[in-house]
Amino acid sequence: MKEKVFIDLIKRTLKSDYIGDDCAYLNDLDIVITQDNLIEGVHFLRKFITPYKLGYKSVAVNISDICASGAEPKYLTVALSLPDDTDEDFIEQFYKGAKAASENAKIVGGDLTGADKIFISVAAIGSTKGRKISSRNNAKPGQKVVISGNHGSSAAGLKLLQGYDFPNLTDKEKEELINSHLMPKAQIDFSKKISTSEINQYAMMDTSDGLADALITIAEGSGVMLDIDFEKIPHAKFLEKTENYKNLILYGGEDYGLIATVDNAEGMTVIGEVKQGSGVKINYKDTSEILSTSSLEKNLFKHFKE
Amino acid sequence: MKEKVFIDLIKRTLKSDYIGDDCAYLNDLDIVITQDNLIEGVHFLRKFITPYKLGYKSVAVNISDICASGAEPKYLTVALSLPDDTDEDFIEQFYKGAKAASENAKIVGGDLTGADKIFISVAAIGSTKGRKISSRNNAKPGQKVVISGNHGSSAAGLKLLQGYDFPNLTDKEKEELINSHLMPKAQIDFSKKISTSEINQYAMMDTSDGLADALITIAEGSGVMLDIDFEKIPHAKFLEKTENYKNLILYGGEDYGLIATVDNAEGMTVIGEVKQGSGVKINYKDTSEILSTSSLEKNLFKHFKE
Repeated sequence: MKEKVFIDLIKRTLKSDYIGDDCAYLNDLDIVITQDNLIEGVHFLRKFITPYKLGYKSVAVNISDICASGAEPKYLTVALSLPDDTDEDFIEQFYKGAKAASENAKIVGGDLTGADKIFISVAAIGSTKGRKISSRNNAKPGQKVVISGNHGSSAAGLKLLQGYDFPNLTDKEKEELINSHLMPKAQIDFSKKISTSEINQYAMMDTSDGLADALITIAEGSGVMLDIDFEKIPHAKFLEKTENYKNLILYGGEDYGLIATVDNAEGMTVIGEVKQGSGVKINYKDTSEILSTSSLEKNLFKHFKE
Repeated sequence: MKEKVFIDLIKRTLKSDYIGDDCAYLNDLDIVITQDNLIEGVHFLRKFITPYKLGYKSVAVNISDICASGAEPKYLTVALSLPDDTDEDFIEQFYKGAKAASENAKIVGGDLTGADKIFISVAAIGSTKGRKISSRNNAKPGQKVVISGNHGSSAAGLKLLQGYDFPNLTDKEKEELINSHLMPKAQIDFSKKISTSEINQYAMMDTSDGLADALITIAEGSGVMLDIDFEKIPHAKFLEKTENYKNLILYGGEDYGLIATVDNAEGMTVIGEVKQGSGVKINYKDTSEILSTSSLEKNLFKHFKE
């Protein structure tokens, strides 16, 4: 399935300017809204995730989208379609996890129906009052690139769940990676700090589709070059004991960190600068690399079964 | 699956007052929100519905929920999970139908992922500015019971699609019934008229789960008796040529009409009165019947495969 082709087609059919971003900014209502589907067999397998963690993750990924916009997460609706054999324990654990992930936001409704497999769809609403809302098209030369969250752990955790082994890691390290995948943490404080203190427009995205994807999307959307120091990207130190850890960090995805381009980077983790030009340059200790959409397509973690 | 048991459990787990209504009223944001899942094999079969009509229906049922609250439908997000063999024509036709059903509301985002079967989840937002919002608990003795939309046609149309025949009906009549099922019409004008003109609190619900279900829910929620004249319930006249047409009208469901209890019924179709007492009394020409939750459980159209 060609996601980008379909999204372009949807935009043309609806003649809508809103489609394509993680959140839609509805400025007449002072809110943003986002929605995500999680499908058994595509996004998760029941044998790898407990009902509590499934509820947690379903909500956390939507809270993360709201955080990426700079809005304050306020309300969620959760629509669950479940097989006939679902029991009360599943429901209770799922909603306990969902509640834990919603932080100060409230789950206010949704739907409950039957299905052959578990289908979860969560919609989240954020309030834009007192917040400056981000856009991936807002990066400006001279801004610093700042980041929150560890990168690479979630993808490594997924690989472990899928049966891949990292022989150099301890059991405790492996457990930490798996937990990063199953229970990502939305970056609520980082989002609030930026959206309540930046005076000028800024870019912000979550790194759910991978850090490289977010960097390229901002560079292309804003018509700028992002000059990134790889060594400064926060990650679990022990990941460096694994093969290809650089790919995990750049392309792994599902870490739900945030990156932003800001004027005021005080007290934040700076990983690079916005410059005039185009593309994303990753500087390693002795070498550097230009990231492009094609390197992305080669490495991107994909939800679609193609 | 026991929907009501699960919903009670969700309420207890979340300690939330919002769960259980069709829309959640978020009064700090001046909006209502609702979300519904439509699952292939549970709510629809691909052989019975075109992509255009599927898109139309997915949106119309959510617009109907917003209308039932009295709010103005404003925005929708559509999250679609689709099998690998989905082509561009499906996407284009689905969104054309979705756009047609959204009337003045805008589709502003959503999600697009893979899945084994078609899974659709739509969230809708309504603005409460200038509107008085309904509750199923607001009916008061002395109010009139008013209704919009034809009743019974949608359920008869579903029966035809499932292979049941109504030998007394013409082909044109059958086509009309099927269309009522596949392309229900949200009652936007009726909703606006009531929510902008009623001075006191009022009850309103859509009849998607059946007219009897809506009447009983309002009577129980408000602690009143609803005295209904069956002959005044609007329905396609030719339905009377079918067996059990009274059951289709009362229990069929998916008509997406609205019923409301109002002080000012001028220019509206009045089908009864709110009285002191409890329960729902249906008056036929020569006899009458008391509807109860148990008669409902026997006759209710169910989405759940049990």
